[in-house]
Amino acid sequence: MNSKVKIWGLGVGPGDPDLITLKALKILQKVDVIAYPTLNGGESLVRSIAEPHFITNQEEIKISIPMLIDRYPAQDIYDAAALKISLAVEAGKSVAILCEGDPFFYGSFMYLFVRLAEEHLVEVVPGVTSLAACSSALALPLAARNDVISVIPGPLDEEALEEQLRTTNVAAIIKVGRHLGKIKRILRKIGVIDNAHYIERATMGDQKIKRLSELEDDNAPYFSMIIVRLSGEILEL
Amino acid sequence: MNSKVKIWGLGVGPGDPDLITLKALKILQKVDVIAYPTLNGGESLVRSIAEPHFITNQEEIKISIPMLIDRYPAQDIYDAAALKISLAVEAGKSVAILCEGDPFFYGSFMYLFVRLAEEHLVEVVPGVTSLAACSSALALPLAARNDVISVIPGPLDEEALEEQLRTTNVAAIIKVGRHLGKIKRILRKIGVIDNAHYIERATMGDQKIKRLSELEDDNAPYFSMIIVRLSGEILEL
Repeated sequence: MNSKVKIWGLGVGPGDPDLITLKALKILQKVDVIAYPTLNGGESLVRSIAEPHFITNQEEIKISIPMLIDRYPAQDIYDAAALKISLAVEAGKSVAILCEGDPFFYGSFMYLFVRLAEEHLVEVVPGVTSLAACSSALALPLAARNDVISVIPGPLDEEALEEQLRTTNVAAIIKVGRHLGKIKRILRKIGVIDNAHYIERATMGDQKIKRLSELEDDNAPYFSMIIVRLSGEILEL
Repeated sequence: MNSKVKIWGLGVGPGDPDLITLKALKILQKVDVIAYPTLNGGESLVRSIAEPHFITNQEEIKISIPMLIDRYPAQDIYDAAALKISLAVEAGKSVAILCEGDPFFYGSFMYLFVRLAEEHLVEVVPGVTSLAACSSALALPLAARNDVISVIPGPLDEEALEEQLRTTNVAAIIKVGRHLGKIKRILRKIGVIDNAHYIERATMGDQKIKRLSELEDDNAPYFSMIIVRLSGEILEL
């Protein structure tokens, strides 16, 4: 490890605490300070994933993110959190910032990274993404040879979502939430709903897997994903 | 762990042996047999990634894959390898099949999986993908909020590749190899070559990173990737 690095973005994986990497574990267990987002100052999913690996006497920095952050990135909150982390480093401490899945695969770590990387060397430790976790849990090989995989956010409008689905071989639709009804409608229209798999809280204790066509709700939790193989070589496997 | 499982597909991560997960490590160190592909019976990259974690007296099954497997999947080879693994299990042994990166993110494990899963319970342990490794190594957040990420194989023909690039926000072009010249030509035509980053052997000792525009060759090794942010919210980060 580069001894000049005092700040790490640590991918802790998709949910199962054992899906953290050895590298992230070693860093987690040597830093002075552990920083992580919480929802409105309360629960922190990422802390609960990493907590079994904490050692004693580690300081914690909670970054309180309001609801709806996805639509209204709270610049002030990230400014303040970056300042707090910078001050810890200037006081001689090392800091790990916990990230669900992989730090740079969506997620809010990027907002801290762009601020901190201006003044500090920040090392990013990749993690197992929710996408990898979901395909493993579904026992569903994602793509063969020259297939294109697209990761498509559910909040896209109906036309954009349909266009994306029509131009890829395999789609992972993320951030499903209240967009489930719309997504089902489009997949039905394209004629591929029977190929679509729904998964919620992959690798966690309460993981839920269904065929999308068997799901009656039009709402899903935020931590859910739909994987659909539309075309391509994977279908001839 | 499910005690009925005797076969695992283990993602061992992108190259750095410390990027294996704790879960994969625990399974790796308890199985009787370790199976992995080799190139023409010789070198095995995935074995070299996992080997620091091997314990003594583990049997090894080498699956010799001929060159050009990507174009000519060697069904006979996978039939024979699946049979060998099945026989080991029927003889009371447990088997881990090593997979670079993540088992279901491209890669040849799927050919064994479809064969073995007919008769056995096969558990797949997700791993850190080359995509996550590359974006971390490049210090490049991949996508923000509602951006679409596409994973696009370099061997696609020029028209298909251009169409894919024009309809996504962020592209990870994999399997670059001898398609580098074509990829550069298309990215220049679209006007985004200055946003494109080239990375070879991410997280390994001899990792190489360049701006694509600074790369003069028209050939690259197989284990290389180009990441290009074309449009979307990530560019406003």
